[in-house]
Amino acid sequence: MYVGVDLGGTNIAVGVLSETGEILGKVSRPTRPKREPSEVINDIVYTIQDALDAAKINKSDIKAIGIGIPGMANKEGVVVDCVNLYWKNVPLRQPIEEVFGIPVLIENDATVAGLAEYEMGKMKGAESGVFITLGTGIGGGIVIDGKVRSGFNGVGSEIGHMAIGDNFYNCNCGQNGCLETFASSTAVIKYAQKIIRERNPETLIMEMTSGSIDGINGEIIFEAAKKGDEIANEVVDRCVKYLARGITNLIQVLDPEVIVLGGGIANAGEFLRKKVEDRVEETKFVKSFPVGHIKLAKLKNDAGIIGAAFLGRHL
Amino acid sequence: MYVGVDLGGTNIAVGVLSETGEILGKVSRPTRPKREPSEVINDIVYTIQDALDAAKINKSDIKAIGIGIPGMANKEGVVVDCVNLYWKNVPLRQPIEEVFGIPVLIENDATVAGLAEYEMGKMKGAESGVFITLGTGIGGGIVIDGKVRSGFNGVGSEIGHMAIGDNFYNCNCGQNGCLETFASSTAVIKYAQKIIRERNPETLIMEMTSGSIDGINGEIIFEAAKKGDEIANEVVDRCVKYLARGITNLIQVLDPEVIVLGGGIANAGEFLRKKVEDRVEETKFVKSFPVGHIKLAKLKNDAGIIGAAFLGRHL
Repeated sequence: MYVGVDLGGTNIAVGVLSETGEILGKVSRPTRPKREPSEVINDIVYTIQDALDAAKINKSDIKAIGIGIPGMANKEGVVVDCVNLYWKNVPLRQPIEEVFGIPVLIENDATVAGLAEYEMGKMKGAESGVFITLGTGIGGGIVIDGKVRSGFNGVGSEIGHMAIGDNFYNCNCGQNGCLETFASSTAVIKYAQKIIRERNPETLIMEMTSGSIDGINGEIIFEAAKKGDEIANEVVDRCVKYLARGITNLIQVLDPEVIVLGGGIANAGEFLRKKVEDRVEETKFVKSFPVGHIKLAKLKNDAGIIGAAFLGRHL
Repeated sequence: MYVGVDLGGTNIAVGVLSETGEILGKVSRPTRPKREPSEVINDIVYTIQDALDAAKINKSDIKAIGIGIPGMANKEGVVVDCVNLYWKNVPLRQPIEEVFGIPVLIENDATVAGLAEYEMGKMKGAESGVFITLGTGIGGGIVIDGKVRSGFNGVGSEIGHMAIGDNFYNCNCGQNGCLETFASSTAVIKYAQKIIRERNPETLIMEMTSGSIDGINGEIIFEAAKKGDEIANEVVDRCVKYLARGITNLIQVLDPEVIVLGGGIANAGEFLRKKVEDRVEETKFVKSFPVGHIKLAKLKNDAGIIGAAFLGRHL
């Protein structure tokens, strides 16, 4: 059996999983990230113990603990940078391994969610796949020949930071033109706000927020677009153009069997998926060759726990 | 022993290689690509036989034949598209296999050159590497865990067609913004011609071509840049900016241990390599993490034969 920890900025969620991926017990508590990292780590330990109790599983039956983090860890299991937790260079593997005496594996949360889709979702059985999470930012998880690939130095699968054009605002990372400045929920909100401010047009978007430009969110934009609103469709079309460009680049480089879209923006569902697929078909390099299938993610809230637990199975 | 075939637009070059990669015999004849594909294929067969004779090796001692082509083949060994040979949907594996009765493997020439660098060059021993050939166009070869990755559908490692910005001319593939429109020799020539036409500046480039704008080539631009010419350095800086952007994207996705630059533009040597490395360090996503080493290719003319032969060893 395996333990999967989904360490987020809001909650620490822990599940105990069987070999086949069944969740035997699940517990969560708030992260409260503004505390000292050591306090958060203590709470991770308590939550693991609580989850073992909830699943009625003995510590000695657990083979490994996997942890998905909203940032990056190095090979030594030190969380190098994790903006949402306010962590910089926090050793995470070592204190958890000391308590439980079994291997602890740490990966980026998008990578972990990709692994979950590979094990139990839309990438299942695929030779290779790329999971793209379209949320506040854009993250990625790459699986090749059944193995998660986060790279030689652990800086790979950061799909959101591929530079694919020139944009009207810079990315948090300091560069201009990152995919996540075109196709994350932050990106579509910023672009909608920009054109509404510039043109002051009639748009369903502003009706839906009762006139508050700060009340715009991704869901509203996609809802308005589905209802045929012109401004909303302009925003969606731009998002699709650049998301397709990012996906086409991934195909040109990696040519995965499957590409899976997850995260908040992917809640727009088939409306978005079909547009992206059409655009990729239009812009792909060799028209006569097939390219990877673009699908919507299957797993929702538990993807983080499931994928983290499966890290142990890939030891 | 293995046979490696480097099928180019100009020559068919064939080598017989030992298990350790020693070239035991080598023969070439002109491709004359404007003939019928069947005539070219007959000449490939003759050249293989001549190379076996030259190496004094019996046909029965050969385990496999690898062929590098300047285009793309599908999984059935049909050359789907090969602009320099004027080939479309030409079966290549089947006629060669019929003659020699051993496995025939076909890959893109840049992929093959990458495999050669992995086996005997600057990627040797690396966990993963990306080879980038900077010629008239830009090609790529990706090796992960000792295996060439050309993708699930065979459309991967086409690094030159990653879209990374907006450019003043379209790519041959029909898209705008492909890496090869920024950093191939064609790209630097076009950009030099553009700014010379627009500004009519004093530049060493025009001295070196005796005033002929059509006489400009990549070598002249880099030579002039090394001598401090302002216009030439403007052209080189733009090439470096976008090449570094392409490499940073590859790092963000794949994070290879080594990145190797080959092809005509890479003849600019350390002058180019250092500029690209500096720019990648400046623009990489996580400043505190190391990224893959950027190196100049070791193998020159025989890379095509060596890499093709090694395709057989990776069967």
